[in-house]
Amino acid sequence: MKALVYQGSGSKSLLDMPKPGLRETTDAIVRMTKTTICGTDLHILKGDISSVSEGRILGHEGTGIIEQIGSNVTRFHVGDHVIISCITACGKCDFCRRGMCSHCEHGGWILGNTIDGTQAEYVRIPWADTSLHAIPADADEEAMVMLSDILPTGYECGVLNGCVKPGDTVAIIGAGPIGLAALLTARFYAPADIIMIDRDESRLDVAKKLAATMLINTSNGRVVEKAMSMTLGRGVDVAIEAVGAPETFELCQSIIAAGGHIANVGVHGEIVPLHLETLWSRNITITTRLVDTVTTPLLLKTVISGKLDPKQLITHRFDLKDVLAAYDTFGNAAREQALKVILSC
Amino acid sequence: MKALVYQGSGSKSLLDMPKPGLRETTDAIVRMTKTTICGTDLHILKGDISSVSEGRILGHEGTGIIEQIGSNVTRFHVGDHVIISCITACGKCDFCRRGMCSHCEHGGWILGNTIDGTQAEYVRIPWADTSLHAIPADADEEAMVMLSDILPTGYECGVLNGCVKPGDTVAIIGAGPIGLAALLTARFYAPADIIMIDRDESRLDVAKKLAATMLINTSNGRVVEKAMSMTLGRGVDVAIEAVGAPETFELCQSIIAAGGHIANVGVHGEIVPLHLETLWSRNITITTRLVDTVTTPLLLKTVISGKLDPKQLITHRFDLKDVLAAYDTFGNAAREQALKVILSC
Amino acid sequence: MKALVYQGSGSKSLLDMPKPGLRETTDAIVRMTKTTICGTDLHILKGDISSVSEGRILGHEGTGIIEQIGSNVTRFHVGDHVIISCITACGKCDFCRRGMCSHCEHGGWILGNTIDGTQAEYVRIPWADTSLHAIPADADEEAMVMLSDILPTGYECGVLNGCVKPGDTVAIIGAGPIGLAALLTARFYAPADIIMIDRDESRLDVAKKLAATMLINTSNGRVVEKAMSMTLGRGVDVAIEAVGAPETFELCQSIIAAGGHIANVGVHGEIVPLHLETLWSRNITITTRLVDTVTTPLLLKTVISGKLDPKQLITHRFDLKDVLAAYDTFGNAAREQALKVILSC
Amino acid sequence: MKALVYQGSGSKSLLDMPKPGLRETTDAIVRMTKTTICGTDLHILKGDISSVSEGRILGHEGTGIIEQIGSNVTRFHVGDHVIISCITACGKCDFCRRGMCSHCEHGGWILGNTIDGTQAEYVRIPWADTSLHAIPADADEEAMVMLSDILPTGYECGVLNGCVKPGDTVAIIGAGPIGLAALLTARFYAPADIIMIDRDESRLDVAKKLAATMLINTSNGRVVEKAMSMTLGRGVDVAIEAVGAPETFELCQSIIAAGGHIANVGVHGEIVPLHLETLWSRNITITTRLVDTVTTPLLLKTVISGKLDPKQLITHRFDLKDVLAAYDTFGNAAREQALKVILSC
Repeated sequence: MKALVYQGSGSKSLLDMPKPGLRETTDAIVRMTKTTICGTDLHILKGDISSVSEGRILGHEGTGIIEQIGSNVTRFHVGDHVIISCITACGKCDFCRRGMCSHCEHGGWILGNTIDGTQAEYVRIPWADTSLHAIPADADEEAMVMLSDILPTGYECGVLNGCVKPGDTVAIIGAGPIGLAALLTARFYAPADIIMIDRDESRLDVAKKLAATMLINTSNGRVVEKAMSMTLGRGVDVAIEAVGAPETFELCQSIIAAGGHIANVGVHGEIVPLHLETLWSRNITITTRLVDTVTTPLLLKTVISGKLDPKQLITHRFDLKDVLAAYDTFGNAAREQALKVILSC
Repeated sequence: MKALVYQGSGSKSLLDMPKPGLRETTDAIVRMTKTTICGTDLHILKGDISSVSEGRILGHEGTGIIEQIGSNVTRFHVGDHVIISCITACGKCDFCRRGMCSHCEHGGWILGNTIDGTQAEYVRIPWADTSLHAIPADADEEAMVMLSDILPTGYECGVLNGCVKPGDTVAIIGAGPIGLAALLTARFYAPADIIMIDRDESRLDVAKKLAATMLINTSNGRVVEKAMSMTLGRGVDVAIEAVGAPETFELCQSIIAAGGHIANVGVHGEIVPLHLETLWSRNITITTRLVDTVTTPLLLKTVISGKLDPKQLITHRFDLKDVLAAYDTFGNAAREQALKVILSC
Repeated sequence: MKALVYQGSGSKSLLDMPKPGLRETTDAIVRMTKTTICGTDLHILKGDISSVSEGRILGHEGTGIIEQIGSNVTRFHVGDHVIISCITACGKCDFCRRGMCSHCEHGGWILGNTIDGTQAEYVRIPWADTSLHAIPADADEEAMVMLSDILPTGYECGVLNGCVKPGDTVAIIGAGPIGLAALLTARFYAPADIIMIDRDESRLDVAKKLAATMLINTSNGRVVEKAMSMTLGRGVDVAIEAVGAPETFELCQSIIAAGGHIANVGVHGEIVPLHLETLWSRNITITTRLVDTVTTPLLLKTVISGKLDPKQLITHRFDLKDVLAAYDTFGNAAREQALKVILSC
Repeated sequence: MKALVYQGSGSKSLLDMPKPGLRETTDAIVRMTKTTICGTDLHILKGDISSVSEGRILGHEGTGIIEQIGSNVTRFHVGDHVIISCITACGKCDFCRRGMCSHCEHGGWILGNTIDGTQAEYVRIPWADTSLHAIPADADEEAMVMLSDILPTGYECGVLNGCVKPGDTVAIIGAGPIGLAALLTARFYAPADIIMIDRDESRLDVAKKLAATMLINTSNGRVVEKAMSMTLGRGVDVAIEAVGAPETFELCQSIIAAGGHIANVGVHGEIVPLHLETLWSRNITITTRLVDTVTTPLLLKTVISGKLDPKQLITHRFDLKDVLAAYDTFGNAAREQALKVILSC
């Protein structure tokens, strides 16, 4: 089968690889129909993520049709149309039972990381019963791909951890796919204002179309001043960091209101200064989270009922055979005005 | 001044009454600009509410301009444009400090009940600092009147107590003004479906315009069967009772899913059968609440930001001098297709 | 093997029964070491629970040693010392993943109900990985038996659902084993007072030893008056119903403070009058729950650390061969001053 | 009257000062009976807190008898025995109504800061109705002094913000008065283990007497290793920082379990490194808070009922005339083995 294979820092190839088979009675083999590329895949290609070894098939998102199941898979059948969760959950360990599947003792984020992933014609999914979600008959498949990772990430790490409430003023720093996923799901809670902050004008344009009420382009400077002015000097109730850099996390600290929540979504590689010398007395909550994908069933209901339209995040479409071109587009997102790209397998 | 005066069971008159004056240093005198009639006022007129004595000026909702303040009123000034909360809160007692202002030791629902109310040209508001809300400069005054009582009631007693979540299926029993207020504010949380249940087709039509996704007219029978069928046999996640009768509260018990919430909003006059013989093992939560109006600032933000349009609840407008006609319209709501009526003072 | 077998309403026998074997790859066979009798077993024997058919081995609590495991059991090994949860959880269905294992689509309360139970020398436990708990090396086995059902029931249905807080006044109606389990676990939260209400003086004596601060014997009448007097007329913050009768549930309604919680634990067979004519405006929360046993790991930690001593609930000990005598003792609890009886298998 | 007056950085004197009088109708004049010294007072004396100007009477804790009240004080009377809260709350502003009185628009921490404080024979308390608490007739006055600041601080900022649960492992860094207050109130929630970490052996001895289950003396090194070993490599569920230094806040980050809570209580003067490069994926919550004293009524109930014995924190007693000696003792806490000192006025 065709698959995108990591070949060490900076290198990847579309190769013919052996089709995966069942290893455990709880496995399923899924014939991929759609997949996508995540910012994390770009990090892997830069060699930033040491757990990924050469020869690994990348990808941790997508939809497909179940081709084969182990004898102990009971919730799914051959032929079922499914979403693949980016988090593989055994469903049994203490973390899974607490709803913290990201820290599953046997799974967590392993697809396209420590086991072969979804940018391929077939993928083996361990613990299939607790790592797949059935797709309703009339659902749009491209929308479903967004439920593998990006929407639960924006929702769980950003919106739920940030405790967005009706009437709130929310700032989202970073208008990339994750920040926009936070924007789409923040709207579930009727905040009064969503301030979107980015340096890319075309991404801010997208944010505006997705109902951001205020925009700040960081290239123009005076970001803190502008945000404080938009909130009449009070600061924002919720700041969602969707970039993963010290300066954006510091920005959150500068614009948060007393009693506010800073919800980190970004992947960080460095120590960040925490301004406890001012924040110690400001009744602030700061959260971090690796997505647990425990809200996928809830999000699926919002998509099916039309409350959430995740296809708005998709800008480009490719065939799997053109996956290198897809990476080129996604890797030059600003130039290409790319958000999420869909790969048909 | 003109005022609507209760004259014992079944009787009311528009009379000339003395203009109220300050009694305590924490009082404000408000010149009424708009008021409205509540279902509770009809109960009073039937003689159902024994705390209301003859000679009482009715009404506990409205907006106005502050004409006079006591020396200890610090948050408001003469000339301020304000919403009058239906709950008068001292702000100091244990209940107020726990956010349960409905049970304020000195206040609570007293306007148009144990002290003179708002269906008049002027009203005295005790504990003005914690019982009034400033109206922003460009707000629509009629929308503001809906924040005195009906919207916080639907939101606090129905939606918040019912714990409405994204993706939920919510049933609201009773499509009168309160049920529709619950509908409008339930939408803050992106539920997948809102099933509106009433016997009046024209009220169900309004519910549909306000984005109810499913309707059940109880006149046609088989209500439980229909609701269970709409939820594929599972029942609803949240049932909001906005009628106040044993049969509608029983309906909630019949259609609630395991793990669901029944939020009572209706005013009840009788014992209701509780089916613990089935519900004991169904992980159900039942709540009751008299509105505390602690969410008025939050609701005000949602109105100002355009997330909530409370004017959709207003069907008729009168002058205070025509208050008897207004009562006639509101008291024959089905015939008149009346929801909320606005009185200009 | 020896086992206690239900033989239709009013009848039970200690019989030789075939030893159970594995049926599914997720099963475990447990050699029982200790078990106990639950009030529910008495209900079964009265013929009250129609899901239990003749020939069923009773019992849903106990500890044992794993003798055999299916190929897909991964968290346990042969020889492991385990607690058997009264709730069998598949760990995969929507209810299990929401922590509502009592409503598991494949399990729930099935032991000694729809499949053979634990009052036997061996028992088959389906979904072993998510239905058993490992016992630490130095734990007291009799204490562990109390974690199968009674302690999570008192804690989840009574204390957690009742939202017991430091400084609260808690009333527990019913000083039987479940009410006392609620008492023991209510103490986790440092309530100011726990009022224990029962008609049996010897049970009230036990409650006093377990740190109840006030006692009311219902045989002496004027119960509401006494409880209100103990709370200076305010009522209790939390009322836990651990009897399962209309009159005790009505008592909860009579003594609950505004803003309070009524947590039902009792098994009810009849409709109960709900006094909405007074409670509608009192900001009350009423909950029901079948134990989910999701807190067993937490409770285990409190036992191991010495914060909870469940052996205080054990009054009698028997061998399994004397199970009929054990039933006689437990079935005449008042006469025998019996709380929980331990059966050694 | 006698009062301790700040005279610029490094300088203080016991002086004769004019007795305060009423300024607003919401004021009370309290004749002090007991007061104490806070770590913050030492910071003021070092010149660290620029809001305190020369001539200011210090102190923000204590008990007394009301000598005079303004015409608008309604909850208290002359002669009432009261606790003075360290947080002065107007009870009317948005922050007060949200329970965030620390950020009260008119009050907050002002006593002994921007207005004259409690280390004096008399003090003026603004907004008396919402800034004082009545002392029950038979309460121990010294215990009551601990409710002004230190107990609500340990409880709100440490224990509540840290979400301590039954069975948890809690680490408290800093065994000074605040850390010990967190220890005493953490015990409300039956944690399995409380690890106390300090460099002063005598303070660790006190912690042990107050039921800390494990101790780490930082002077002996390998602190992270020891804490991780005590938790079998898992880390602690809750880490409470009660020192206010970068290295102790970093320690919290090093020993926190995935999914854990870091609750900051310490007063910080510097930027602290936040290790987002590891914590971003660890599902951590970090909180800061200035005490709001909203839990004082709850804490008062736990003291009166004997669930909390705050006198355990008191080591020394002085007369107000010997306040300089009291400062000397408190300022050399290690040498003097001092925790809280009581001053009789």
